[in-house]
Amino acid sequence: MSAPAAERVVVDQPSGAPARVPTPEPGDPRLARLSLNQRTTAEWSLAEAVAGCVAAGLPALGVWREPVAEVGLEAAVRLVRDAGLRVSSLCRGGFFTGPAATARTAHDENLRALDEAAALGAPVLVLVPGGLPPGDRDLPGARARAAEAVAALVPEALARGVRLGIEPMHPIYAADRGVVSTLAQALDLAEQHPAEAVGVVVDTFHLWWEPDVLAQVARAGERIASYQVADWITPLPPDALLSRGMPGDGHVDLGAFTAAVAAAGYTGDVEVEVFNADVWAAPGAEVVATLARRHVELVAPHL
Amino acid sequence: MSAPAAERVVVDQPSGAPARVPTPEPGDPRLARLSLNQRTTAEWSLAEAVAGCVAAGLPALGVWREPVAEVGLEAAVRLVRDAGLRVSSLCRGGFFTGPAATARTAHDENLRALDEAAALGAPVLVLVPGGLPPGDRDLPGARARAAEAVAALVPEALARGVRLGIEPMHPIYAADRGVVSTLAQALDLAEQHPAEAVGVVVDTFHLWWEPDVLAQVARAGERIASYQVADWITPLPPDALLSRGMPGDGHVDLGAFTAAVAAAGYTGDVEVEVFNADVWAAPGAEVVATLARRHVELVAPHL
Repeated sequence: MSAPAAERVVVDQPSGAPARVPTPEPGDPRLARLSLNQRTTAEWSLAEAVAGCVAAGLPALGVWREPVAEVGLEAAVRLVRDAGLRVSSLCRGGFFTGPAATARTAHDENLRALDEAAALGAPVLVLVPGGLPPGDRDLPGARARAAEAVAALVPEALARGVRLGIEPMHPIYAADRGVVSTLAQALDLAEQHPAEAVGVVVDTFHLWWEPDVLAQVARAGERIASYQVADWITPLPPDALLSRGMPGDGHVDLGAFTAAVAAAGYTGDVEVEVFNADVWAAPGAEVVATLARRHVELVAPHL
Repeated sequence: MSAPAAERVVVDQPSGAPARVPTPEPGDPRLARLSLNQRTTAEWSLAEAVAGCVAAGLPALGVWREPVAEVGLEAAVRLVRDAGLRVSSLCRGGFFTGPAATARTAHDENLRALDEAAALGAPVLVLVPGGLPPGDRDLPGARARAAEAVAALVPEALARGVRLGIEPMHPIYAADRGVVSTLAQALDLAEQHPAEAVGVVVDTFHLWWEPDVLAQVARAGERIASYQVADWITPLPPDALLSRGMPGDGHVDLGAFTAAVAAAGYTGDVEVEVFNADVWAAPGAEVVATLARRHVELVAPHL
């Protein structure tokens, strides 16, 4: 026999610890800038993610291309629009550090991603630069290819009114996913182009360790195209790709980070993006409730 | 029945792939600066590591404090001296980012480590700064404590003729092991002190991803107190602490790195330090033979 509802303890996911603050209700003004990145509830289809946001009172969704492809772009646009949600970002373009022969294919794929972002009304296409080709040890070369590929996309982004968001990634991914490793490096790259064409993605999981990162956030200013929140937890989960923690469960000073992002002038949505097998195994609605609680406790007061 | 020796294929460890070059014989001048870091053959006692170096013709050993403690300092000094080996470094001091109340204990432990390094004739004590105390999110604070602790050790190091080697560690360890994350950051710290007192440890595994790292190696110059070699392999092994690869098995451009270290004026030993469960499971002599082959193939030509 289950306990009566009044006695049921609300727990955070995936920790299982009792919630520290009440779950904010839909309409709570502290939720006004909170966005669910789809990969946080990876088991949910696009329709389920849209419904989950609406039920929890989240006004925005960070959309991934794969679940869009599952339903088709037009249906995806309709789903999001009919629910009254903003699309805070489209994830993801990039992956343009392959061998030279693959550059054209990667460029064309990014054009399709830009088209999708424009159709969805996403202000930014998140660019994951890509890693080293198999057997390749030329990291500076891969970084140069990434810079060239971004430059080639600039006119296309301007034409579509979608910003390119270069995402510096934690050095744990430098070999196989993202050769741009620091916010300083991403800004060096972005600043070669107009700010309305190329910005940067500030993700606390990727950047929390960077020396003087808050000074780089200040430098970024209007270049901040997206602010994504996840924590760094220890011990690090065994799969490096699923090693993010729920905000508040790890070592990131979310208050200081968020205050710096706000001081830099960022007024966009705050996406919670947590790739983590334990989070994925938890019921989606409980995950969304947890991140809403963590948002009002740890992030919203600093916005 | 095993195959006759003449037909036996020599394989590399832990890959199991056929060796690409003949194993260098003891006395080969290309081995003149090769050192085995004890953690590469973690199953070996100090006596076994000494014997393994002698058998393979390696002139130097990177010694760890724990196996020294097992036999006692005097016996350890005798073991190494009688074998005619150099001690290329003592691992490790540091771990001084704990709560303020632990600073004195950490300092005293580092004094003992400096004494041991002096007795062993090690030119450098490798300093692993330490991570964040449990529940702590103040990374800048931990970095400041590390800087203070290094400063407090400077006169002690000078008095003993042992150099402090600050080891910048891959950001994967910033939370729980090493809050100094880049060579640039380590140099900012080291340059506050005389070069004979404070140097840096250049470890390819920790630093390969750092933007413009070779420019930082050039900046380091005489500050390079130790050069350690290991590779970054993908997929990353599940235990983050055992995720290093045998030199040549991963994504690090060892030739470029080594050439930069040599151009910076470094004339010391090259330590191979590979924490990896598969390496530890392989026979120690085969591991040493593999790293000797990789050294003459990939590192020695650039020294």
